[in-house]
Amino acid sequence: MKEFNRILSEYEAFKAKGLNLNMSRGAPSSEQLDSMERLLTAVTKNNECFSEKGTDCRNYGALDGINETKRLFAEMLGVDMLDVIVGGNSSLNLMYDTIARAMLHGVEDDCKPWSKYEKISFLCPVPGYDRHFAICEYFGINMIVVPMNNDGPDMDMIEKLVSEDETIKGCWCVPKYSNPSGITFSDEVVTRFAKLKPKAKDFRVFWDNAYVLHDLTDTPDTLLEIFTEAKKYGNEDMFYEFASTSKITYAGGGIACIASSRRNINRILEELKIQTIGHDKVNQLRHARIFRTYSDIVEQMYKHLQLIRPKFEVFYRIFSEKLSGYPNVSWTKPNGGYFICLNLPKNTAKRVAQLAKEAGLILTPAGATHPYGRDPEDSILRIAPTFPSVAELEVAVPLLCSCIELVIFEKNHNNT
Amino acid sequence: MKEFNRILSEYEAFKAKGLNLNMSRGAPSSEQLDSMERLLTAVTKNNECFSEKGTDCRNYGALDGINETKRLFAEMLGVDMLDVIVGGNSSLNLMYDTIARAMLHGVEDDCKPWSKYEKISFLCPVPGYDRHFAICEYFGINMIVVPMNNDGPDMDMIEKLVSEDETIKGCWCVPKYSNPSGITFSDEVVTRFAKLKPKAKDFRVFWDNAYVLHDLTDTPDTLLEIFTEAKKYGNEDMFYEFASTSKITYAGGGIACIASSRRNINRILEELKIQTIGHDKVNQLRHARIFRTYSDIVEQMYKHLQLIRPKFEVFYRIFSEKLSGYPNVSWTKPNGGYFICLNLPKNTAKRVAQLAKEAGLILTPAGATHPYGRDPEDSILRIAPTFPSVAELEVAVPLLCSCIELVIFEKNHNNT
Repeated sequence: MKEFNRILSEYEAFKAKGLNLNMSRGAPSSEQLDSMERLLTAVTKNNECFSEKGTDCRNYGALDGINETKRLFAEMLGVDMLDVIVGGNSSLNLMYDTIARAMLHGVEDDCKPWSKYEKISFLCPVPGYDRHFAICEYFGINMIVVPMNNDGPDMDMIEKLVSEDETIKGCWCVPKYSNPSGITFSDEVVTRFAKLKPKAKDFRVFWDNAYVLHDLTDTPDTLLEIFTEAKKYGNEDMFYEFASTSKITYAGGGIACIASSRRNINRILEELKIQTIGHDKVNQLRHARIFRTYSDIVEQMYKHLQLIRPKFEVFYRIFSEKLSGYPNVSWTKPNGGYFICLNLPKNTAKRVAQLAKEAGLILTPAGATHPYGRDPEDSILRIAPTFPSVAELEVAVPLLCSCIELVIFEKNHNNT
Repeated sequence: MKEFNRILSEYEAFKAKGLNLNMSRGAPSSEQLDSMERLLTAVTKNNECFSEKGTDCRNYGALDGINETKRLFAEMLGVDMLDVIVGGNSSLNLMYDTIARAMLHGVEDDCKPWSKYEKISFLCPVPGYDRHFAICEYFGINMIVVPMNNDGPDMDMIEKLVSEDETIKGCWCVPKYSNPSGITFSDEVVTRFAKLKPKAKDFRVFWDNAYVLHDLTDTPDTLLEIFTEAKKYGNEDMFYEFASTSKITYAGGGIACIASSRRNINRILEELKIQTIGHDKVNQLRHARIFRTYSDIVEQMYKHLQLIRPKFEVFYRIFSEKLSGYPNVSWTKPNGGYFICLNLPKNTAKRVAQLAKEAGLILTPAGATHPYGRDPEDSILRIAPTFPSVAELEVAVPLLCSCIELVIFEKNHNNT
């Protein structure tokens, strides 16, 4: 009981501090946002408001975005700028809208709108991103869990399912530095995606490349460019790719894009013109002005790396100190992205999050990494290190470890 | 034939000039946009990026917008700021999204999604806004034409139709300085809208208040505030109101809003949170900083008035000189808004637009003012005076008059 008393008194001591820290979302920190001050003054004069084609960015038009930002995203993603549409500030919004259009109008002329099928399903590699799953739930799309391996989702399962089941219309992917596992899809996994033979002609992969440039080490992961591969098999219509500058410039004032085959892009533009006359081009221009070349972005990403990596290292150090003795406790050390995936013993994650909350530390809800918020093992926590300061983490991580130790002790005690 | 020769040679002379002028859309002019330069420098420093509540506008969050901009739109529209959601740069996008949500999820818990009905219809006061009609067409919503009187749509017809026909789920309105007629709904019309008794519980009026502050005279029209009226009859859930700063600040970089009953707003937020984490708050902050009070906006609108009114006057002067002798030719002189509605003899509008185009002047396509682009009389042209300069108009308007004279002459000649 001596050990239990130590753990409990540690936890109670944290609780007494009355912390108030929200670590639930993968949000950039103030320092990261501060490093982007030049975005605010990138366009300050009337005569600076024109795109390279002479478009007045203050006025209506340019539904697909201005060339400068189309080129920027094209370079980030390794695609052709003609295959890019630049949207507003949210790639999530573009994903939602893409599915909303599919629901109401379908994705191929000779296929029904998705909402007209009795049942449709999406493949959801797990652990995954809660906001992807929320879109499916909202639209009444059945979610099929696919396990993640160390090099991406279980492709044997995906190949089998899509070739047999015509109700499967989509698959979510965060191919690089996956949210939250940090895994980057191997060349083999990307290639197997590229040559999928789905039974449903209107099957689409939602390739959410949210962390395409978001390295955390000097030896970053690399990802095969999906459209280059897909074209080898005539499958380029099967992919919608998304990216944004939310974690490059401003999460609340960046720009986002969708990239796809030329055929899909043209179809999207035909529908998009009903929805809007054009997105915010002045903000596009700001981005184009501060990122005149691809290397300007790379330089900015290195600033982010320098601000973020020390935060991940606080976790690694304190987790090592406090948690390495415990069986079935492990954590990822991703080469990039915004998350650490913390694997705990069965049936402990919810209780850990609850204890943390009671001591003033809000984590991403346990279960958020799974469709419908249901982690059957109740064992995974998504940790978002970026938003708090290092000083805050020096308090928050030991608290989190205390919560974990306490719950494991409770569990072992109850089981014996 | 002497008269015909004069008209024809005038037209040919215009044609020889090789004009290239696009007058098709109600877009602000460069001068108007230039008058807003201070928007570009409204927020230039890191420490200026916080809302009055302390929200870091560069980061995620604030789905409903920051208080400053909610208050701004609330004052513009005369509603409660809690009943406002601030979106991205496009009110059209908010209208489209509102209908898309209604199609997929309905607008009331105990009503079906609109897409699940065999047939649904919208009432479309005519002449009206082509982009409204395009949304209906895109979503497969049947459009029922309602004539516009001098004080708004034919309310006898609307009252009768909505009380009898359950398939009618919506009605488009531009209640102030209507696009394109310039009509403002009278108090009686607004009141009759407020107390409509639709057969369909999920009937909604789309109250597109695009020109709420867009006066062109010193004796502007006034419009009754719709929610104040609707609440008298318990009908506040029946209205969605829209507005934007597209024609106050930047058409390609402003902010837009939706206002409705508290109940509708809460429902929308529940759905909106699936679509996005939040709209561009930095741009909201820019707007809040330059428009600290309502009178700041009023002052800006007066600048617009001073730039726009002379353009309308070019039309009035030249139309008077050239067209007043012709029967069945008339034009509106609105107290505000962005358009002149030009009424021509039957079966001439298309031909006039065609001749203008051949001489280098692009007008809004004839028919655009009607659902499906079909003006059965082919007699209405929407004129958008704002974008060209006065100097350009001094050439374009006589050309337009030449086209009209030529077509009328052709028509009379063919008929005799």
